[in-house]
Amino acid sequence: MTPSQSQATIDRQPVIILVRPQLGENIGAAARAMANFGLGQMRIVAPRDGWPNDKAVAAASGAEYIFDDAQLFDTAAQAVADLNLVLATSARRRDMVKPVETPVSAVALAHAALGEGGRVGIMFGPERTGLSSDEVVVADALVQVPTHPGFTSINLAQAVLLVAYEWFRLAGQATIAPHLPMAGTRPANKAELTGLFEHLESELDAAGFLLPPEKRPAMVRNLRNLFHRRELTEQDVRTLRGVVAALARRGVQSKN
Amino acid sequence: MTPSQSQATIDRQPVIILVRPQLGENIGAAARAMANFGLGQMRIVAPRDGWPNDKAVAAASGAEYIFDDAQLFDTAAQAVADLNLVLATSARRRDMVKPVETPVSAVALAHAALGEGGRVGIMFGPERTGLSSDEVVVADALVQVPTHPGFTSINLAQAVLLVAYEWFRLAGQATIAPHLPMAGTRPANKAELTGLFEHLESELDAAGFLLPPEKRPAMVRNLRNLFHRRELTEQDVRTLRGVVAALARRGVQSKN
Repeated sequence: MTPSQSQATIDRQPVIILVRPQLGENIGAAARAMANFGLGQMRIVAPRDGWPNDKAVAAASGAEYIFDDAQLFDTAAQAVADLNLVLATSARRRDMVKPVETPVSAVALAHAALGEGGRVGIMFGPERTGLSSDEVVVADALVQVPTHPGFTSINLAQAVLLVAYEWFRLAGQATIAPHLPMAGTRPANKAELTGLFEHLESELDAAGFLLPPEKRPAMVRNLRNLFHRRELTEQDVRTLRGVVAALARRGVQSKN
Repeated sequence: MTPSQSQATIDRQPVIILVRPQLGENIGAAARAMANFGLGQMRIVAPRDGWPNDKAVAAASGAEYIFDDAQLFDTAAQAVADLNLVLATSARRRDMVKPVETPVSAVALAHAALGEGGRVGIMFGPERTGLSSDEVVVADALVQVPTHPGFTSINLAQAVLLVAYEWFRLAGQATIAPHLPMAGTRPANKAELTGLFEHLESELDAAGFLLPPEKRPAMVRNLRNLFHRRELTEQDVRTLRGVVAALARRGVQSKN
């Protein structure tokens, strides 16, 4: 768990269960994906290359703390024995009457079960073959990522990432929303904008730019529209006024 | 492009631009992520280990067809020169007044710009450092993936995956919705369920299971609730009736 997460938080999260993973790189990348989205519990079933695995640690890129609490199992059945809701990711259709969920609906199910005090696990199968039918049978539902029909095979760590990403979004921890950072300044107000426009237009009048007179209103309107479109900051306005003043001074100088 | 995608489709998609990527494995995994979500246009700016790259092909796992049409550039500025809207992914805050989008809002911007006939690119920086400030300057907006604050560094291919995934969802191509596959059967109707219950209950009455009589209504209700909860198929009902019949026969035999 990260320093910022308590055991109580971890217990209210789905467990990520990697069943017979082949490549240490993918185990590490899965741990990293879990860390990106605040998941802390990993279970590993019969990893092909044994455990611990140096390549997994290298690929975790700083998320290897996930492995400190990871649990090792011999079979998928053992790994899910204490769980109440088990979801099995699957890239292909199974000849089974078992609900198929998307990552979005799967994490909603997980969230609901956890809210009722249940324990939830999400299984991911080996790279080449996916989960076996016997491993899928224990699951309450399948999880399929909607993909382009021409290329449905998703990398193991990529599948973990998408589920973890949707979990993080659902759990309401996603605190970044679209915004415009102000970087120490603030949006310009209308008075500041009007001051800028009048300054600019007076210099342009002096320079003979806003001619002929019958075209002046449209030219001014276009100029003002251009700046209104751009969400100018107060700093932008001061910068532009400096530009206008400098150009005006230069004009005076070049006439002398 | 995949066989199922026309050039016209590709032209209405954002271009994925990998700027100074270091590891061929990540370039390949990015191509695979693009293929998973039907994106076909990759641009590569000054890859560290040159181009083509065998590790990229290996990691693409069948998506190496993306590289056939990939374009190589020396600088990010050259790679975006023909584009109208450029988005720059960034894991960290920049000291710039530039809109910050999430993957969801970024693909919405991309979709709108493409709908107006514009060309759109999404830039991803090198693994260690991300995009330089000079590279970010040309972008109309930043894209930040909301992550757990304790672990914000996302793998290059994982970042491509999340943007491609959101693109695919927005573009309305995600055809998998939660459902219960019927695998050749259909949901049982109420008459079939009632037939099953009556069969079961008559055998249980005969076996002396539904006793004492004052508890029978509650026991029957519990049994029926159990099966109603489980979305039985018509095949399930026939199977269960077979089970009841077999047990009843066995009871008759054991009494003989």
